Amino acid sequence: MKIPPVKGTRDFYPPDMAVRNLIIDGWKKVSLRNGFEEYDGPIFEYLKMFQIKSGDEIVEQLFSLQDRGGRELALRPEITPTLARMVNQKISSLPKPIKWFSVPRLFRAERPQKGRLREFFQWNVDIIGEDDVLADAEVIFCACDYLQEIGLMPDDVVIKISSRKMLAAVLKSVGIPEERLDLLYVVLDKKNKLPSETFKQILNEQLSDSKIVDKIQAFMELKKVSDVESMFGRRGEVKESIDELAELVDWLGRMGVEGYCEFDPGIVRGLAYYTGIVYEIYDRASGLRAIGGGGRYDNLLRDFGGPDIPATGFGIGDCVLAILLEEKGLLEKNLPKSVLDYFVIPVRNITFDDEKGIVKSTPEGETVKLTTKLRRLGFKADFSYKGTSLGKQLKEASSRNARKCIIIGEEFKNSELVVKDMASGEQQLIKVDKFFAKLKSEMK
Amino acid sequence: MKIPPVKGTRDFYPPDMAVRNLIIDGWKKVSLRNGFEEYDGPIFEYLKMFQIKSGDEIVEQLFSLQDRGGRELALRPEITPTLARMVNQKISSLPKPIKWFSVPRLFRAERPQKGRLREFFQWNVDIIGEDDVLADAEVIFCACDYLQEIGLMPDDVVIKISSRKMLAAVLKSVGIPEERLDLLYVVLDKKNKLPSETFKQILNEQLSDSKIVDKIQAFMELKKVSDVESMFGRRGEVKESIDELAELVDWLGRMGVEGYCEFDPGIVRGLAYYTGIVYEIYDRASGLRAIGGGGRYDNLLRDFGGPDIPATGFGIGDCVLAILLEEKGLLEKNLPKSVLDYFVIPVRNITFDDEKGIVKSTPEGETVKLTTKLRRLGFKADFSYKGTSLGKQLKEASSRNARKCIIIGEEFKNSELVVKDMASGEQQLIKVDKFFAKLKSEMK
Repeated sequence: MKIPPVKGTRDFYPPDMAVRNLIIDGWKKVSLRNGFEEYDGPIFEYLKMFQIKSGDEIVEQLFSLQDRGGRELALRPEITPTLARMVNQKISSLPKPIKWFSVPRLFRAERPQKGRLREFFQWNVDIIGEDDVLADAEVIFCACDYLQEIGLMPDDVVIKISSRKMLAAVLKSVGIPEERLDLLYVVLDKKNKLPSETFKQILNEQLSDSKIVDKIQAFMELKKVSDVESMFGRRGEVKESIDELAELVDWLGRMGVEGYCEFDPGIVRGLAYYTGIVYEIYDRASGLRAIGGGGRYDNLLRDFGGPDIPATGFGIGDCVLAILLEEKGLLEKNLPKSVLDYFVIPVRNITFDDEKGIVKSTPEGETVKLTTKLRRLGFKADFSYKGTSLGKQLKEASSRNARKCIIIGEEFKNSELVVKDMASGEQQLIKVDKFFAKLKSEMK
Repeated sequence: MKIPPVKGTRDFYPPDMAVRNLIIDGWKKVSLRNGFEEYDGPIFEYLKMFQIKSGDEIVEQLFSLQDRGGRELALRPEITPTLARMVNQKISSLPKPIKWFSVPRLFRAERPQKGRLREFFQWNVDIIGEDDVLADAEVIFCACDYLQEIGLMPDDVVIKISSRKMLAAVLKSVGIPEERLDLLYVVLDKKNKLPSETFKQILNEQLSDSKIVDKIQAFMELKKVSDVESMFGRRGEVKESIDELAELVDWLGRMGVEGYCEFDPGIVRGLAYYTGIVYEIYDRASGLRAIGGGGRYDNLLRDFGGPDIPATGFGIGDCVLAILLEEKGLLEKNLPKSVLDYFVIPVRNITFDDEKGIVKSTPEGETVKLTTKLRRLGFKADFSYKGTSLGKQLKEASSRNARKCIIIGEEFKNSELVVKDMASGEQQLIKVDKFFAKLKSEMK
């Protein structure tokens, strides 16, 4: 019986797993050096948890299931609701600000497309309990620190930054009532994802007032923060958001990552829970979907039954990132070569007494003994299961990128091994005891 | 709105995540040095995939869900079917034997109990394409290598080894027909999990012949392989399995792990797919469920529509293992202390011109600049968001296990930093340039 994998999921064969590990290990390393601690939640939560304040698009795309009691569950499409739940559960005992990161496996029941799968990994970095713009800057720096680490420079990628607060103020100033904002964000979020004519048409259908549509579109096309001031004045929430963006840019400059960042009021984010600075990360060539995005979400913990506590953070998925790294040659450049420290080779058709002269020993037996001893010492060591010639086994060692081979042949009758350096080809005859004594002294 | 987590799942707060990482990182490290390559599959597969050859118990406990086309899916309760599918898909291009490992997240919709949750991690190590008993020995060695690495010695844990082939031969010799074996394994597998009276009663109900029940029970209580020979003779499949076990013990001896291993014909394994050597790992104190188990499954790839190719491997879960490590004090002993290389501290209420004498700079601004520069160099560095006194910030540094503090105070007007070693308490005044030059030279 032959059964295929489910569409939109991935089989990670060892070479694919190496890419996944390269990406995830990089995320973890950068998070830790930026002072974030790792957390994770369950793969599934009660369905209703994702219906609070997530975007409609996400809720439509949930994989739902039931527990044995018939309660509705869902595979997590994002980890932010879980984060809010976990932080709320222990809010009083956690020192603030809470600087946490996670690399959850996430799920969306949508039609698989390039860079968008039903199952993926997402790096999440959040600071909870700090309303200073510095916290927004710090998480953005953390993203830049990773991009630079993996080799994606400001020539390759850009972080397009805007403010949900600014957008809300602008929308209200053109006459959109507060209660319609959440739905409108979902539409406006499509701006960079649709042809401009289609986008305009949808917006016209939503608002049925072409003057308002033109004003919103004009705002979303602005290139500089000062243009917003010219167009909408510097007061109330518009002023607040302009000041916040200026402060953010100042911090990003001190951090040395301003080259990655650009103001773009076309950035909206689909999720309903954002309240302040928002951003999305794109490759400059712009053929791909967003690599990631984030922003401030100061009301989410309260919406989840917790205290009124500010929060900011981002998510970067593995699918688009992997495509971009491949395109830029950065996978090949960064992937560690799988290597073995030792490959142990028996020369067949010999038998000899072992050290105590009691048991007849074979080179195969000694090979296994030696290999496992090397492993116990912490070395990557292996041997061949194939009873082939010395030449073929040396080839196998070479294809496995072994640094050294240990050959167990006639010399073993005198308790001697041949150690062959695979790079230089040099061979050395050495007593077994001396070989291990040397290894152990080198390890200290 | 307050929503609880789903019962039987876990929230991994940073201290819990540290335990999970300790366990999983150890599994990965040992797998790699034993020459295994990492793979993974999707979290869900078509439901019917798990209905082929898995134990009935597993199939009953599946979390099922549907894709948008209404096809039945299930969260994976084990990874072996996925492994069989993946290997079959690329069977002709993969060099044999295939030595692979994985650390899948798995799911079982059962009542949560101590050491048994609805969501858990399991280390899987398999060798496919090798029928030599050496392959069984090698995977068992790999398990022992991990146990020893984490500090679980032969005094603490035991690998109880038997043979499904031997059990099948014994059952057939007492008159059980071949087609009833699979169901009987599920019952016999309960022997160590039920009070002996209950077990006997269930067995009597199944077989309704007390003589047969007595014989089976007597077999399962045997202590030595030679007792099997005395009781059932040395011929056919009984002989084959006795020879295999002898060979296995010989290899385990050469590998230096015989102290972990014991013959126990009471070991059955619930899964239907085992064909040869089987084993389970227990703590000697025996208060807990099995830590893990495995065995040979030579027909599984064929049952999944592939070629007739032998395979052997084991799984070790994280739940029971974590309880045992905790009990033995091995978590505390092995958990890495979370540390910071540098904690950067501004002394407030000072302003100074920056290097170029143009921009008024604050110690907070310089703190962020310095911290992010350290992070870019690869150091774990952080600062405080709280505008508190030097003393309080030093306390915060201490509670975060910072090795060194960098203090930005009045001296910064002369471009000098105070570097404080947190262990010795020593303070050093150093020029900023010199400090970074020294860091970079130390990194080479």
